[in-house]
Amino acid sequence: GFATLDLDRPRRCGAAEVIFAEGKTPEQVVAIVRTLREQGGCVLATRCTDEQVAMVQSAFGGNDQLLVDALARTIIVGDPPAPADAAPVCIVTAGTSDLPVAREALSTCVAYGQPAELIVDVGVAGLHRLLGRLDTIKRSSVVITVAGMEAALPSVMGGLIEAPIIAVPTSVGYGSHFEGLAALLSCLNACASGIATVNIDNGFGAAVMACRINALAHPNTVEAS
Amino acid sequence: GFATLDLDRPRRCGAAEVIFAEGKTPEQVVAIVRTLREQGGCVLATRCTDEQVAMVQSAFGGNDQLLVDALARTIIVGDPPAPADAAPVCIVTAGTSDLPVAREALSTCVAYGQPAELIVDVGVAGLHRLLGRLDTIKRSSVVITVAGMEAALPSVMGGLIEAPIIAVPTSVGYGSHFEGLAALLSCLNACASGIATVNIDNGFGAAVMACRINALAHPNTVEAS
Amino acid sequence: GFATLDLDRPRRCGAAEVIFAEGKTPEQVVAIVRTLREQGGCVLATRCTDEQVAMVQSAFGGNDQLLVDALARTIIVGDPPAPADAAPVCIVTAGTSDLPVAREALSTCVAYGQPAELIVDVGVAGLHRLLGRLDTIKRSSVVITVAGMEAALPSVMGGLIEAPIIAVPTSVGYGSHFEGLAALLSCLNACASGIATVNIDNGFGAAVMACRINALAHPNTVEAS
Amino acid sequence: GFATLDLDRPRRCGAAEVIFAEGKTPEQVVAIVRTLREQGGCVLATRCTDEQVAMVQSAFGGNDQLLVDALARTIIVGDPPAPADAAPVCIVTAGTSDLPVAREALSTCVAYGQPAELIVDVGVAGLHRLLGRLDTIKRSSVVITVAGMEAALPSVMGGLIEAPIIAVPTSVGYGSHFEGLAALLSCLNACASGIATVNIDNGFGAAVMACRINALAHPNTVEAS
Amino acid sequence: GFATLDLDRPRRCGAAEVIFAEGKTPEQVVAIVRTLREQGGCVLATRCTDEQVAMVQSAFGGNDQLLVDALARTIIVGDPPAPADAAPVCIVTAGTSDLPVAREALSTCVAYGQPAELIVDVGVAGLHRLLGRLDTIKRSSVVITVAGMEAALPSVMGGLIEAPIIAVPTSVGYGSHFEGLAALLSCLNACASGIATVNIDNGFGAAVMACRINALAHPNTVEAS
Amino acid sequence: GFATLDLDRPRRCGAAEVIFAEGKTPEQVVAIVRTLREQGGCVLATRCTDEQVAMVQSAFGGNDQLLVDALARTIIVGDPPAPADAAPVCIVTAGTSDLPVAREALSTCVAYGQPAELIVDVGVAGLHRLLGRLDTIKRSSVVITVAGMEAALPSVMGGLIEAPIIAVPTSVGYGSHFEGLAALLSCLNACASGIATVNIDNGFGAAVMACRINALAHPNTVEAS
Amino acid sequence: GFATLDLDRPRRCGAAEVIFAEGKTPEQVVAIVRTLREQGGCVLATRCTDEQVAMVQSAFGGNDQLLVDALARTIIVGDPPAPADAAPVCIVTAGTSDLPVAREALSTCVAYGQPAELIVDVGVAGLHRLLGRLDTIKRSSVVITVAGMEAALPSVMGGLIEAPIIAVPTSVGYGSHFEGLAALLSCLNACASGIATVNIDNGFGAAVMACRINALAHPNTVEAS
Amino acid sequence: GFATLDLDRPRRCGAAEVIFAEGKTPEQVVAIVRTLREQGGCVLATRCTDEQVAMVQSAFGGNDQLLVDALARTIIVGDPPAPADAAPVCIVTAGTSDLPVAREALSTCVAYGQPAELIVDVGVAGLHRLLGRLDTIKRSSVVITVAGMEAALPSVMGGLIEAPIIAVPTSVGYGSHFEGLAALLSCLNACASGIATVNIDNGFGAAVMACRINALAHPNTVEAS
Ligand SMILES: Nc1ncnc2c1ncn2[C@@H]1O[C@H](COP(=O)(O)O)[C@@H](O)[C@H]1O
Ligand SMILES: Nc1ncnc2c1ncn2[C@@H]1O[C@H](COP(=O)(O)O)[C@@H](O)[C@H]1O
Ligand SMILES: Nc1ncnc2c1ncn2[C@@H]1O[C@H](COP(=O)(O)O)[C@@H](O)[C@H]1O
Ligand SMILES: Nc1ncnc2c1ncn2[C@@H]1O[C@H](COP(=O)(O)O)[C@@H](O)[C@H]1O
Ligand SMILES: [Mg+2]
Ligand SMILES: [Mg+2]
Ligand SMILES: [Mg+2]
Ligand SMILES: [Mg+2]
Ligand SMILES: [Mg+2]
Ligand SMILES: [Mg+2]
Ligand SMILES: [Mg+2]
Ligand SMILES: [Mg+2]
Repeated sequence: GFATLDLDRPRRCGAAEVIFAEGKTPEQVVAIVRTLREQGGCVLATRCTDEQVAMVQSAFGGNDQLLVDALARTIIVGDPPAPADAAPVCIVTAGTSDLPVAREALSTCVAYGQPAELIVDVGVAGLHRLLGRLDTIKRSSVVITVAGMEAALPSVMGGLIEAPIIAVPTSVGYGSHFEGLAALLSCLNACASGIATVNIDNGFGAAVMACRINALAHPNTVEAS
Repeated sequence: GFATLDLDRPRRCGAAEVIFAEGKTPEQVVAIVRTLREQGGCVLATRCTDEQVAMVQSAFGGNDQLLVDALARTIIVGDPPAPADAAPVCIVTAGTSDLPVAREALSTCVAYGQPAELIVDVGVAGLHRLLGRLDTIKRSSVVITVAGMEAALPSVMGGLIEAPIIAVPTSVGYGSHFEGLAALLSCLNACASGIATVNIDNGFGAAVMACRINALAHPNTVEAS
Repeated sequence: GFATLDLDRPRRCGAAEVIFAEGKTPEQVVAIVRTLREQGGCVLATRCTDEQVAMVQSAFGGNDQLLVDALARTIIVGDPPAPADAAPVCIVTAGTSDLPVAREALSTCVAYGQPAELIVDVGVAGLHRLLGRLDTIKRSSVVITVAGMEAALPSVMGGLIEAPIIAVPTSVGYGSHFEGLAALLSCLNACASGIATVNIDNGFGAAVMACRINALAHPNTVEAS
Repeated sequence: GFATLDLDRPRRCGAAEVIFAEGKTPEQVVAIVRTLREQGGCVLATRCTDEQVAMVQSAFGGNDQLLVDALARTIIVGDPPAPADAAPVCIVTAGTSDLPVAREALSTCVAYGQPAELIVDVGVAGLHRLLGRLDTIKRSSVVITVAGMEAALPSVMGGLIEAPIIAVPTSVGYGSHFEGLAALLSCLNACASGIATVNIDNGFGAAVMACRINALAHPNTVEAS
Repeated sequence: GFATLDLDRPRRCGAAEVIFAEGKTPEQVVAIVRTLREQGGCVLATRCTDEQVAMVQSAFGGNDQLLVDALARTIIVGDPPAPADAAPVCIVTAGTSDLPVAREALSTCVAYGQPAELIVDVGVAGLHRLLGRLDTIKRSSVVITVAGMEAALPSVMGGLIEAPIIAVPTSVGYGSHFEGLAALLSCLNACASGIATVNIDNGFGAAVMACRINALAHPNTVEAS
Repeated sequence: GFATLDLDRPRRCGAAEVIFAEGKTPEQVVAIVRTLREQGGCVLATRCTDEQVAMVQSAFGGNDQLLVDALARTIIVGDPPAPADAAPVCIVTAGTSDLPVAREALSTCVAYGQPAELIVDVGVAGLHRLLGRLDTIKRSSVVITVAGMEAALPSVMGGLIEAPIIAVPTSVGYGSHFEGLAALLSCLNACASGIATVNIDNGFGAAVMACRINALAHPNTVEAS
Repeated sequence: GFATLDLDRPRRCGAAEVIFAEGKTPEQVVAIVRTLREQGGCVLATRCTDEQVAMVQSAFGGNDQLLVDALARTIIVGDPPAPADAAPVCIVTAGTSDLPVAREALSTCVAYGQPAELIVDVGVAGLHRLLGRLDTIKRSSVVITVAGMEAALPSVMGGLIEAPIIAVPTSVGYGSHFEGLAALLSCLNACASGIATVNIDNGFGAAVMACRINALAHPNTVEAS
Repeated sequence: GFATLDLDRPRRCGAAEVIFAEGKTPEQVVAIVRTLREQGGCVLATRCTDEQVAMVQSAFGGNDQLLVDALARTIIVGDPPAPADAAPVCIVTAGTSDLPVAREALSTCVAYGQPAELIVDVGVAGLHRLLGRLDTIKRSSVVITVAGMEAALPSVMGGLIEAPIIAVPTSVGYGSHFEGLAALLSCLNACASGIATVNIDNGFGAAVMACRINALAHPNTVEAS
């Protein structure tokens, strides 16, 4: 076989394996979805190609609910859990081009049954855009910032709120940003505190962290996923 | 003046400024402690030299309670808040040399009024050491891993528990670890999920993130600091 | 001519030159196979394109046995030596995407006449998968780990067995792994001992090292190749 | 000789050579000051050690006015030109530790005869500090930002004012900032426009650029230096 | 929505948002142009694909003046302000391949209403070419150097003139230039002073800096844009 | 406590924990030696300071045999196992300055009970030196090359012998070798095969790998340690 | 115009400008060839695409002699000077894949009128191949080594001959060679002396250096070019 | 023994081993000098500490001529060969701080019996300084440029003369020059041709290359050394 699925993960970690579709054949993706579906619960796949999406749709579209986000390149097979009755995760982007990463985070929250909301293109070059949304942001439990270039957003955010912040640097930029390295270093070196960082463009990873945090505050919610 | 203190921070972020003592004169440290003490609440200083500690002790030792951790190089002036009645933050190190960073995290939790506990030298080269402490770890709300070299600890931890994990890479190692860069890249690329990373040796930053998370689950606790 | 083949290598090093097909024309590959076949022994080519495979098949398929592994991108022309009567080399991968590199190692063992076996997708995020195969692993003489991302597998393995371990970092991952550099640094900085590392994705090199080791324990085996 | 002084520079570039004292013996510094003083005009030396300062003081202190800034490690021998009647250069630091670099910039403005003013410790983690000084900043002609760690200050500044901004990244920080590289990349990748960058800790270079700009707006001013 | 346009920017920074077209759909570019046009003033888009240019042309070509520079990949929709009556910005390239970056700078000056002129292929390997144009260069107010490989041009220029210099390193070269990094480091380490640097290939950024400087010397000019 | 010793390691891995003394206090080293000695077998400590050596000598020198190698900075407390009756590990250095690393490898072989021999300063700039020792080298079972600068030694060695080769790059060199990185990359990219690499200056790691290999060919030997 | 040709270069440097065709349109290449041809002497273009070669052939093929090397991607328009009556430049490659770079060097020697000869695939993994050609190599005046991966060839060569050696690292390899960086660092750190290095894959640059050296020993030769 | 001296090198390479003193004990240096002196010819040692110089002086000062250059940190024991009757090697530095590296090159030329001359502090920020010395430079056979920071000197030099140029980047600079890396990349990417590069600060290596070149033009000269 090409895989040894970790079917015990929900018991240990509170959530099932998620399929990282990059580099897998469409047939492999379908086969893994099938095995994971047998456990009950919905199945999330990230970084899907059009071809993978198409084959998953034709394999499961008849019986299962399918949620496809083309921009995020995610697919959810089966009904996701109803969102927990909790303060939402707030996903905030600095620019327009950070949107796909932010949407990957959003799909992940859906699959994990945590409420989430999205605020787009409020980078620090026009501060009033961010300050104008501060009330909404302050009502959320955890904030995910999604920003490329020099990624100043988490630093500014860190000085404005009490909630924990998860910074996602993105590979958005021009010139010597080195595929997001400049943004990554910025997040790690943020002068404000209360910030932890995930890998470049890793919207999924940020959302899992956020969901684990939210589940902590609302202990009964993740079990359903 | 040499500083513009951010006295409004407790209102916005739920906790006062912390003094990063590196590169400051002992006189500057004393002056900043004095101003911050006027707000009430205890004052935390990190990365202190012996000389800075001595001058702070002679300036405040008469009236205030002082908590000095020589290994962590931290000092707390004034009574810290009583620890919240909550599940503790669990700080776990891979080796003996990671201890100073772990202790900086511990002092920070004390100053922020969050309960914390420390498990030392349970790196993955002898798995039974980690597995033998798993019950304790699972009773905590957030886990901070402190590991240098190849920093495999957060990956293994991520597959064993449900709680959010904050990974602190350390500059511990020999050969081409590049002052902790190998460990940092490992944390960012961990194959397990539910992990976010702070900068190399940044025990303070990890603890602030952990305390913000714990305060979320127990909303009344941080206010006291 | 475009090449100066090292026909004396079997006498000095116990095995013939292997063709690294990348960047060679199909005609060049066929010409080199022909010259090496004249020495007797089978001929191994690695990193072959479909076009190279096709031309080798039409040139030699009539007379010689051909072993083609499309995933590994290897081809063996002529009968490989019977595998030595020895404990096998054990090739273990962390994930599904590490399979092509593992299969290049497997083909190399075949061409060198050393027994080998393959264990797939037992990375440390689900430790029970690895622990469940430990008996098999402990019966082998040498272990090759194949792992990308943060490559925690060799560290964990190094603390569980007595055999020498050869670590192959792979360029599998997302974000700031820098084409496998994060995995490479992890392997080099592993906290466990008994581990040596080959270059990123170099399944061939790991297998040659393993075969030299196995031949040492069973001195009569490599001569046949 | 150990040097070929460029005595023609005032004619070509509008200002004399400045002595970069690092790595020079005190005797060499004195010798160069002497030669440059013969041209008339004051002489600026940067990155001076205590020993160099002492020897310059004993050599010239009898006859010439001396301006020594111990924090900036600069010395000006001879009367600097009266500051031009122009809007000032505004030098703004993110933190307390950025002060020496900012003061090197200030000394340079003095030696070049351009008015300058200093605003300290108004980094983005406490935005009100920066916003509270915006009126002053807006009255200046050029702004120099001095910031280490993730250097978010120039990005935020760039979205608030019309004047050209010169960003000086500093080697201030902890963890993986790589001696200021994280700050440097941030400045170069700033999402706001109207920003150009000088090398890490190069307060001198930023000030020369600022003075050339100010002299452009007030063409008669630099000639005096 | 996919964007939160910063319509207040002209008031704060003296010029409107510019569209960075890379990674946007043609429809998104058209939509943003439309919104920005409503403010009055011309609209500049940079890094445009042929497809984006075509769609902008068909959407606005009927009513608005369009200036397209295919080499620079820029488009200006609407009448740019008449150039200020001021000394020009002088854009100088080291080689022929630096031309696209230089032309992006030129288009930006046009959109910002600052006069500019272009001198091409006068790199330091044939010094007489640069020295032969020195009179023209000295009549300009600000100089933008555009150079790849080892980017020696700003250093040599810095020793020849009084005006401020903005250095644009380019990703032009062969071998280990690392996509312009060698040129970037050269600009930052230039031994001459009066130089500030923008990111690799960032002709737009250099021109905005130059225009802000020129506007300072001729305060009434930018308002029109 | 400051440590969680892995006393079960001999059973799992065939050899006890080795003390990496760097960063430990002399008291800690003595305490760990004491605990490990209770298991029987000798105890190896590497990277020892003079002070650590002195305190170990005064604590154990009365009862135990002590082997101290000041150049290698190693100490062995207690009788090492008699060397196995096997072909030796051959440790070969390119230059004189590689000697401390080679001697660390030698001490490790002693502690692990494997025979070893040392050949010094036979780098490729004078090939006859290496070729003159080839007979000796060919009689060994495993070869450890220790080389800095461009580390050409393992490549040349790999084309001359049948035995497996473990390459140790060293931080010996001048100019842009980046603390051994040039040598490390050379070892990983060696054009010859049959080579695996350990981290920079890691003589200990190379020797453990070599001993595991030798123990494989002579299965009864390591048990004694 | 898009270019400022340096027509004075033969007088200053003894040879005309060479066209680096990469990034130029075929029309630009033809135009530059035309201008340079007017000076007399042949014209060399390197890094040509098929399309550029075709257009040069159709523009000049009627009247001028054309020498095209498709592997080297070079074209010489017009009769090159007769080779000087001097010891040849010897170009030696480590592998088959280094051939294109070596052939670029060869074409350059032809255009500069210096005799040259080529030895292919004699890398250090099979030393007898190199030693077998040593007589030929020793009869040459300058040696150019062309080698990728770990580039051990110049080090070994440096210890065998008296002539100056120019090392060309190539981007040939697999795994972490970083586009030739490993080879570049090896060349710069070679333990043998008498070696200088040019940029990765820069066969042209190595040959110009070699021709300048050969012209020095035979002063009348380059003038003709 | 700690060394295997290569006493055959003069026959193969035309010159004896040179002692790289860094990291050797004074006793080792004396012992190697003694052995090399037995071959006849003078002995050169580079990178000597004061202590090494003192011990060499007391061991050989009675009988042998000693040439010590404290700035270069070199020592020549025994009479160097009379300089060849040839055009000199010209060593040119950009700044004052590059002098030690230039002087190491000068001592090496002396030991190798090649005439050399030194021109100091003529960097490109004041072009007239370099142009004023061009006649002298043009009378030499080979030019060594010694330059740190952005190392523009070899590029400018390459466009002015016919002789081969050897570029030595130095670790002189401030800010992000990364111990000379910026200068190294500049030298390798120089837009002029006829330039080859040695490692950072490697004055010795540059001089050996220059002497090999000069010996080629004057074949009878090196033999004496
Ligand atoms: N997949 C591979 N990865 C690394 N090295 C290889 C591989 N395949 C072959 N080689 C090595 O490359 C050599 C041939 O290189 P070449 O002369 O360029 O064909 C062989 O003798 C092997 O040592
Ligand atoms: N603190 C500084 N940072 C950067 N460059 C400086 C500094 N001080 C002086 N310089 C430059 O260094 C030149 C003198 O260098 P040098 O010839 O080595 O003394 C001056 O003309 C300035 O351009
Ligand atoms: N070619 C360019 N290079 C660098 N920055 C640019 C360029 N073009 C536009 N920008 C900046 O990018 C901003 C728009 O970014 P976005 O919100 O992602 O469209 C503009 O306001 C400019 O400050
Ligand atoms: N200053 C220097 N820089 C670079 N290489 C040197 C230098 N001095 C001596 N060498 C080289 O180092 C070799 C001696 O190295 P070792 O065997 O380690 O003493 C000599 O034969 C020279 O090739
Ligand atoms: Mg935007
Ligand atoms: Mg331990
Ligand atoms: Mg898996
Ligand atoms: Mg502050
Ligand atoms: Mg040109
Ligand atoms: Mg030696
Ligand atoms: Mg070959
Ligand atoms: Mg100077």
